[in-house]
Amino acid sequence: MKNVIGAVCIKCGAEQTAANDTYTCKKCGGILEIVYDYHYIKSRLTREKLAADKEYSIWRYLDLLPIEEGSKLSALRVGWSPLYKTEAMGKALGLKNLYIKDDGLNPTSSLKDRASAIAAVRALHAGKNIVACSSTGNAASSLAGNAAALGLRSFIFVPERAPIGKLTQLLIFGATVIKVKGNYEDTFRLSAEAIAQYGWYNRNAAINPYLSEGKKTVSLEIAEQLGFIAPDYVAISVGDGCTIAGVWKGFKDLYALGLIDKLPKLISVQAEGCCPVNRAIETNSPIEPMEENTLADSIAVGVPRNGDKALMAIRESKGITVNVSDDEILAAMRLLGNTAGVFGEPAGVAGTAGLKKVVEKNLIPQDATVVSVVTGNGLKDITSAQKAAGEIGGPIHIAPDMGLLEDEFRKRGIEV
Amino acid sequence: MKNVIGAVCIKCGAEQTAANDTYTCKKCGGILEIVYDYHYIKSRLTREKLAADKEYSIWRYLDLLPIEEGSKLSALRVGWSPLYKTEAMGKALGLKNLYIKDDGLNPTSSLKDRASAIAAVRALHAGKNIVACSSTGNAASSLAGNAAALGLRSFIFVPERAPIGKLTQLLIFGATVIKVKGNYEDTFRLSAEAIAQYGWYNRNAAINPYLSEGKKTVSLEIAEQLGFIAPDYVAISVGDGCTIAGVWKGFKDLYALGLIDKLPKLISVQAEGCCPVNRAIETNSPIEPMEENTLADSIAVGVPRNGDKALMAIRESKGITVNVSDDEILAAMRLLGNTAGVFGEPAGVAGTAGLKKVVEKNLIPQDATVVSVVTGNGLKDITSAQKAAGEIGGPIHIAPDMGLLEDEFRKRGIEV
Repeated sequence: MKNVIGAVCIKCGAEQTAANDTYTCKKCGGILEIVYDYHYIKSRLTREKLAADKEYSIWRYLDLLPIEEGSKLSALRVGWSPLYKTEAMGKALGLKNLYIKDDGLNPTSSLKDRASAIAAVRALHAGKNIVACSSTGNAASSLAGNAAALGLRSFIFVPERAPIGKLTQLLIFGATVIKVKGNYEDTFRLSAEAIAQYGWYNRNAAINPYLSEGKKTVSLEIAEQLGFIAPDYVAISVGDGCTIAGVWKGFKDLYALGLIDKLPKLISVQAEGCCPVNRAIETNSPIEPMEENTLADSIAVGVPRNGDKALMAIRESKGITVNVSDDEILAAMRLLGNTAGVFGEPAGVAGTAGLKKVVEKNLIPQDATVVSVVTGNGLKDITSAQKAAGEIGGPIHIAPDMGLLEDEFRKRGIEV
Repeated sequence: MKNVIGAVCIKCGAEQTAANDTYTCKKCGGILEIVYDYHYIKSRLTREKLAADKEYSIWRYLDLLPIEEGSKLSALRVGWSPLYKTEAMGKALGLKNLYIKDDGLNPTSSLKDRASAIAAVRALHAGKNIVACSSTGNAASSLAGNAAALGLRSFIFVPERAPIGKLTQLLIFGATVIKVKGNYEDTFRLSAEAIAQYGWYNRNAAINPYLSEGKKTVSLEIAEQLGFIAPDYVAISVGDGCTIAGVWKGFKDLYALGLIDKLPKLISVQAEGCCPVNRAIETNSPIEPMEENTLADSIAVGVPRNGDKALMAIRESKGITVNVSDDEILAAMRLLGNTAGVFGEPAGVAGTAGLKKVVEKNLIPQDATVVSVVTGNGLKDITSAQKAAGEIGGPIHIAPDMGLLEDEFRKRGIEV
């Protein structure tokens, strides 16, 4: 990879080669971050080149991605999700320049496709024919889908509590699913053991430093879609920390290349019932494990494996932390649906819920340019959507008769 | 609309103005088709113009759409879904040039967004602030989503049997949902009465001739994505007939403009348990009502309201009809998932199931260029996906122990 210099440990700062999919620091075991040769990339990745590029997917940013030359790229169209300027929702929130990035429109319906596409491409290039991870959710389904499209097999380890809907998507994508009798820690351990023993490609995001490089493409797109002007704020939900770290990395890359001339502030949103990253920021102390009490399952991570990277990102950006209740998450789901026509899953809309709270607290100016990333499709979790919809009052239930319909409209005060 | 001449009745051939959202023939009550001024459009819609156009949505084809000048266009990004060349699936089916068009990646996760976007834009321009339709499925959710994004309200009439998952999406999009005690006919009737009484914009696709104009954009995209070469065959599932009619119209438009130099043959796929359109073709007789016995609910239409348009399209294209069982549909769901990484709903993959059958019967040559359109996302109907996944054998269920894992791999003959 001519564009990659190597990797650096975010804990001890030790530099190392990134060539052999080294996943953790050889000195201290810390998490690595990929280091690019910006000088080399600067001559290749220009606004003009991008303006002429018709590859509307994450691969338009190949110069900024850790992909070996000559790799066969993912067959699915990952990335270049729409960025909507939404006046109605802006008005509801009291923001004049609000944008929604709908990442639920990725091939397997979540932002995680951005990371899994990188994993599948790197695995194939490395001569692996099996990729593996432990996950109950979007990481798993995106890995299974992206692997299938490239002709790779996938082995997915899930804890016993994994909902049947999510298992189903995995099975349809042809994954071998191993349901582990135990909790997430047990599941993760068995997956790590099997990966080591069989030499499979490891897509456990917190360990594999290449994956947040995929996630950063969401920021590259936001900046390009805004005409190479970074927004003032980006609101995003935080679970294991890998996504917010990727978001920050994307903007930093563009800044280093001179493609944007300022950096946004991050709004880190966690669930009240599970907010170890935000608590660490707020109390200026190390991350301590927490219970996982929230319906937003994709961000219910009590022991964030990429917590350090997340803390660094939030602090460097002089970001804001905010925690939201499940009710606030459900309200955000309704707000996005009926003002912007965007249907997100609970974890996917938590960022929006947090943004609403931040505006109410007057923590950001009304005329700021703000992007709220919706990270997953609402169809992924219909049970939670039903809870959100329940608050609305439900359908009108009548016999087929105009008189009855008129009565109901009157009774409910519905203007027609 | 400078590009639209008027409308013509597909039954009696009477010409009429299309200006005032006239929905049926004034002479015989037949269904109308929009007539374009190809001479005018020819000078505007060229390959060069499209090559330079960065509007990657249905609006890149505005010259071929019935949209009033100066209309505010849909806020959602509808269309320009990916067209995947899938070698693995082609091999499984015995086709050398197989493409999958994944229309489940539209904003509300189905092809119907293409029609609903037109409806919402036309409604807004006509000064309406309420749009309405009767539907249990994708037409309804796409209308509710596209209306919400444009600041319009939506009133959706659903029959009592409508599944809660689909109702939920409607409520999240802020629709007023009227659940009618009765069957689909009762529901449709009440919706028609209410629409007439209140003057709402009518999105009942079979009646509103503008909607298949939206659906035709899927063909405009297929042709452009193939470099302005029409495929030899397009396989698509058929319910009320509006979609296959739209598919055909798109190719005919391009042919009339000289942008493609041949027309594809259509492969019309229906469910064995509900195939009134295909039966009419096969027996060369008028469409007769049928029971609705299939799990592919989006194409379970016993009385196709756009049957005449569908028959015309299949006959004009010298097309092929094929009916598939529910088991064949579920098998297609697995095949698409594990060879192409595409997850479709039952009605969405029925086209693929039919294509498989047509190849097995040697009805099309192996080297033909074939496009199979997947019309809706598998997440829309997890219950059916579970049935499909059930056939796979389910997950391996073990305690977190490497020895047990190895045993299971051996027992099941899984190579690692």
